[in-house]
Amino acid sequence: MHMQHAVRVAAALALVNLLAATPSPAQSDPLPSWNDGAAKQAIIAFVKATTTKGGPQFVPVPERIATFDQDGTLWVEHPVYSQLIFILDRVPAVVKAKPELAGVEPFKTVMSGNREAIAKLTTDDLMKLAVATLTGMSVDDFQAEVKKWITSAKDPRWKKPYTELTYLPMQEVQRYLRANGYKTYIVTGGGQDFVRVYAEQTYGIPPEQVVGTAGATTYGYDTNGKPFLTKDPKLVLNDNNGGKVEGIHLMIGRRPHAAFGNTAGDQQMLEYTKAGSGARLSMLVLHDDAAREYAYGPATGLPDTKVGTFSQALYDQATKGGWIVISMKQDWKRIFSFAN
Amino acid sequence: MHMQHAVRVAAALALVNLLAATPSPAQSDPLPSWNDGAAKQAIIAFVKATTTKGGPQFVPVPERIATFDQDGTLWVEHPVYSQLIFILDRVPAVVKAKPELAGVEPFKTVMSGNREAIAKLTTDDLMKLAVATLTGMSVDDFQAEVKKWITSAKDPRWKKPYTELTYLPMQEVQRYLRANGYKTYIVTGGGQDFVRVYAEQTYGIPPEQVVGTAGATTYGYDTNGKPFLTKDPKLVLNDNNGGKVEGIHLMIGRRPHAAFGNTAGDQQMLEYTKAGSGARLSMLVLHDDAAREYAYGPATGLPDTKVGTFSQALYDQATKGGWIVISMKQDWKRIFSFAN
Repeated sequence: MHMQHAVRVAAALALVNLLAATPSPAQSDPLPSWNDGAAKQAIIAFVKATTTKGGPQFVPVPERIATFDQDGTLWVEHPVYSQLIFILDRVPAVVKAKPELAGVEPFKTVMSGNREAIAKLTTDDLMKLAVATLTGMSVDDFQAEVKKWITSAKDPRWKKPYTELTYLPMQEVQRYLRANGYKTYIVTGGGQDFVRVYAEQTYGIPPEQVVGTAGATTYGYDTNGKPFLTKDPKLVLNDNNGGKVEGIHLMIGRRPHAAFGNTAGDQQMLEYTKAGSGARLSMLVLHDDAAREYAYGPATGLPDTKVGTFSQALYDQATKGGWIVISMKQDWKRIFSFAN
Repeated sequence: MHMQHAVRVAAALALVNLLAATPSPAQSDPLPSWNDGAAKQAIIAFVKATTTKGGPQFVPVPERIATFDQDGTLWVEHPVYSQLIFILDRVPAVVKAKPELAGVEPFKTVMSGNREAIAKLTTDDLMKLAVATLTGMSVDDFQAEVKKWITSAKDPRWKKPYTELTYLPMQEVQRYLRANGYKTYIVTGGGQDFVRVYAEQTYGIPPEQVVGTAGATTYGYDTNGKPFLTKDPKLVLNDNNGGKVEGIHLMIGRRPHAAFGNTAGDQQMLEYTKAGSGARLSMLVLHDDAAREYAYGPATGLPDTKVGTFSQALYDQATKGGWIVISMKQDWKRIFSFAN
């Protein structure tokens, strides 16, 4: 071969290789909003262990399931979780449609606007409000109501839509897990139909991957013979405590390899996940940052928002059971995308 | 540029293009077990319409949901569906564990082995048998029982495991839909926990995409403190008729774009699917091939296996409602992978 020719062919082949090769990008930090520490290291070690082919803790892609509590784990739940605000905001429309409710408790108290009295409503009162505001309409009408509310309602402290109050570090964990073949699920005590309305846009989690407290529906036809579903005041799944594991079985059918929660309502999901064989990651978000977010629960001795019980026991179970505690104050460099 | 040099660079660049380009393979038939005809054309036209970017009927990937009834739609359900055989096969073990049942109906009849008497068991009797054989054990134990049974039990006509009696043309439809971004679900009147044991291996459908008749479970701990779920005799979802649509809402949360069924138990799923906007495909499998499989239902005036009612009305609804009827005799070149 003529020398010059050989050089040219070599150069051309180098070009071919350059164009054909998939560039391996500089290893970038998948969790930039996390400070270096045990929590961040545990997440990265877990993902490496379960995705390393041939490794002793390798998990096949179909079994890569990760579940996340929502309120207090993915977004702010303090001082009250957003679905309760939706319920209270819906009461005037319900009373307008049924004026006889105006003089009946607990509607009367809600309509009074007396915050102290509203804060004292019992669980029974809240159930009555939930039935009146979340059932008795078509699924389509309900979804439209939630959509309207979620785009307009704002958190009073940050003056931002609730969907912007998601924790950036947890969004990064979800994306990192998905990029490594994990299916990410929300497993929430909140209403399944409620959370599904915004979960796809807010977290990139489609409706079929939202497991939540769910009511029955009934199939029927409108006056034009068009089929539709009505939301019934009958509980199918109470997705709290042991109900979270029952919901995971009902809707997913596999034990998660990773689970994230923050209150006693998540205890069973975290212990069930950790009880599986192989690498399992159970993480507990500790609200210990009164300045940037809130401090409550095990970090402070103040009651949990959702369960109303002190949860030192949960913290103790976490440390004894090999769960990883996430300190919002220590482990999170940034909490919200809009704030440093 | 020197001429010879220019030619060489052009040749090298042609090589670059050759290596870099994704070869477009010769368009192969995605449905080789189907005869050409209206049914096959409808499937292909639907997939093209909903996956053509910029087309008027384009469906974004996350909304590409297709639901399949199982018994009689994906595999043989005649003369009785396989879960009923599992239930009957389980009775001796149940009676062995609780000998007092031996003298009690309907257990006595099942233990007698008298086929005529067994065939006359009422729905109430079957419910009692289902409760005794499908509940009261842990989820893990139940799955192990089903696994053992499904690998050993054989259909008496073909002398093959039930999992080999799947319809090859429907397997092709599922693969074709999945290759085009569709998530394929089973939506079955059969037990969700039962079907999930073999659906992944048999159809390539993971547990979280099996929606079926489901019972409650209860979270608890064994004597070593290890958590587990017990199957309760309490129905959470009766996944038949309107219940199929209610189940789709509960477990998926989106209206399917394509649905496949074969009996009156699938009517609501098919009409609900077809009632959606844009391109929607509802298909009804007609059992009209007495030689290669069975003939029953609308094709013959013989009762459906599952619903026990004549279903000429269903056939009429299919033709009036724009559903596509699949004639097993006319539309399927091959029915089983083991037979021509």
